Amino acid sequence: MPPIITLLTDFGTADGYVGEMKGVLLSELPGATVVDISHDLIAHDVEIGRLTVARYWRRFPPGTVHIAIVDPGVGSPRAALAIESDERFLVGPDNGLLSPALLIGGARAVTLSIPPHASSTFHGRDVFAPAAASLAQGVEVDALGSPAQDPIIRRTPEPHRDASGDLVGEAIAVDRFGNVITNLVGMRGGRIVVGGREIPLRRTYAELESGGIGAVVGSTGLIEIVVREGRASDVLSLSRGARVILR
Amino acid sequence: MPPIITLLTDFGTADGYVGEMKGVLLSELPGATVVDISHDLIAHDVEIGRLTVARYWRRFPPGTVHIAIVDPGVGSPRAALAIESDERFLVGPDNGLLSPALLIGGARAVTLSIPPHASSTFHGRDVFAPAAASLAQGVEVDALGSPAQDPIIRRTPEPHRDASGDLVGEAIAVDRFGNVITNLVGMRGGRIVVGGREIPLRRTYAELESGGIGAVVGSTGLIEIVVREGRASDVLSLSRGARVILR
Amino acid sequence: MPPIITLLTDFGTADGYVGEMKGVLLSELPGATVVDISHDLIAHDVEIGRLTVARYWRRFPPGTVHIAIVDPGVGSPRAALAIESDERFLVGPDNGLLSPALLIGGARAVTLSIPPHASSTFHGRDVFAPAAASLAQGVEVDALGSPAQDPIIRRTPEPHRDASGDLVGEAIAVDRFGNVITNLVGMRGGRIVVGGREIPLRRTYAELESGGIGAVVGSTGLIEIVVREGRASDVLSLSRGARVILR
Repeated sequence: MPPIITLLTDFGTADGYVGEMKGVLLSELPGATVVDISHDLIAHDVEIGRLTVARYWRRFPPGTVHIAIVDPGVGSPRAALAIESDERFLVGPDNGLLSPALLIGGARAVTLSIPPHASSTFHGRDVFAPAAASLAQGVEVDALGSPAQDPIIRRTPEPHRDASGDLVGEAIAVDRFGNVITNLVGMRGGRIVVGGREIPLRRTYAELESGGIGAVVGSTGLIEIVVREGRASDVLSLSRGARVILR
Repeated sequence: MPPIITLLTDFGTADGYVGEMKGVLLSELPGATVVDISHDLIAHDVEIGRLTVARYWRRFPPGTVHIAIVDPGVGSPRAALAIESDERFLVGPDNGLLSPALLIGGARAVTLSIPPHASSTFHGRDVFAPAAASLAQGVEVDALGSPAQDPIIRRTPEPHRDASGDLVGEAIAVDRFGNVITNLVGMRGGRIVVGGREIPLRRTYAELESGGIGAVVGSTGLIEIVVREGRASDVLSLSRGARVILR
Repeated sequence: MPPIITLLTDFGTADGYVGEMKGVLLSELPGATVVDISHDLIAHDVEIGRLTVARYWRRFPPGTVHIAIVDPGVGSPRAALAIESDERFLVGPDNGLLSPALLIGGARAVTLSIPPHASSTFHGRDVFAPAAASLAQGVEVDALGSPAQDPIIRRTPEPHRDASGDLVGEAIAVDRFGNVITNLVGMRGGRIVVGGREIPLRRTYAELESGGIGAVVGSTGLIEIVVREGRASDVLSLSRGARVILR
């Protein structure tokens, strides 16, 4: 089977940076399957990148190499990482973006050495793509660098219980449809309070009437605030960090 | 030859939903050729999705499996379809999106059964991608469900003749360049009237002067209203449904 | 190894035009690796397209076929080109977009003949994709048309020296991050003056403080004006053509 290499960046595609990376990958591995995840991440938003990585990295078959780059610190002394975790490989900057893989038991991470000719502004082309091609060709992670010291870990904030016993969570992301994803794990029953307003917990969008506001358990098991045929983020003026209570 | 699976959605790519679907597809079929058509369809706009499907589905070789999802009704009792038509396969929601394939003689459609573990908000990952992988592996459509009862059909509205013998059509889409695509089939000669104004029918954009307004026969054989080096939709304030007359 | 065909257009993806082209390519060559560079180029902006082509075309392995289309003149008598240059192949309109390949010694270019059935509005599907498929199958460039007469060449403007000995260049592009790319070749030392203001030349973004303005040598060797964690194009009100001086 051809090796699979995925790409997640905040580069957009129009400037040709992603094109350059694909050229490097296919020059090394002309038969590889190169898969676009997205290049439309919000520029420099490491946190949203981390949540996106969490969604897909283990959906791909063992042996897949994931490149993920949201890298406001390119050119700084921040480390470049290669990780082996749960039979997949990941490369990207050491800024918390790859935390979902680092938090799995048995994960191993190395600090990639930066080739002397590497551009200081474009590690995607000169550091991460070559490392990914090596991993896809079967090179061991340990051969690519020295063990990483304390890579940066980002975590989804945990909800806490307040004095009245309610679970107090927050909005962690807003998706393209305006659905507001929270850090509250879905369950049957319970009532959701957001912006001082109680909204019903439903099994599906379709149980709401048109324009109706509610909560559903989303596809990763977390509670989402939704509006049928509308954008919950707009209707309720919710953005990341907004308080959401499960009562 | 590796099986070909195409993807058309309104999901955007940044949230990782499309990444999850690609992971499911390549886990089932690591050697498949997964082709992005678009993930930038207007959210929930089934009609535009249908016109896009019409453009490409038969351009791909026999055996291709097309996944197409614009699905405001996910989680409702709307059926999930798998279709075999003209030697291609399609999967997607039963809301008219897949009409171009259903309208071909000999089309067969089945209602996919929803696996018990499927998320009620993300059939793309849990219903449509697995069904597409099965079809790409040679599973028969009939093995995936029971015959579909009266799947929903959407059609491009037909122009009609008015009392004076003119053909009265309408704008059915506006493309990225601001070209306004109508439901009038192109022909030599005739005059086009739009917004009370007569515009010339030309063979190509290039026969217009810069900023000039005209009509051409587009690449699917339909008349399009265009402005050379400009956006006809803006210049003439045209949107979907606008009346266009062929005299 | 499967043949590699890349795609760069200003078509967007939502209208399905790119989907049609991929269908044509995979019908001719079901095993090909079709690579998206971008479909989000600014509509009709040949100059930006040219700079993007320059970035990636030689990063791909010998034998790669590049399709690049930004084509405001489609349907006019402008020629359609196929080029062999430095062991790669390119097809696209004769408007300067493919100059980076034409300027290499030994480049050969032919004028593609337009098939009689070709749509006058969509050469991507009816002219360029079929020509690319032929090249990827090993057909010689010379077999696809007659030698091109004086194809249009666009060049990045050259900086000039003013009376005081300063090198006077200009902004040639603004990338997604708001970095302003100039036509000044990077060097150690020197001072940059832009908008009457002197800014420091640094080795990396990371040597600037947050919000700091500076210049770095970008990944193609050209000087870029940057703002750490900001958009230089906005902060300094710079767009294409703005004067940038290297002192």
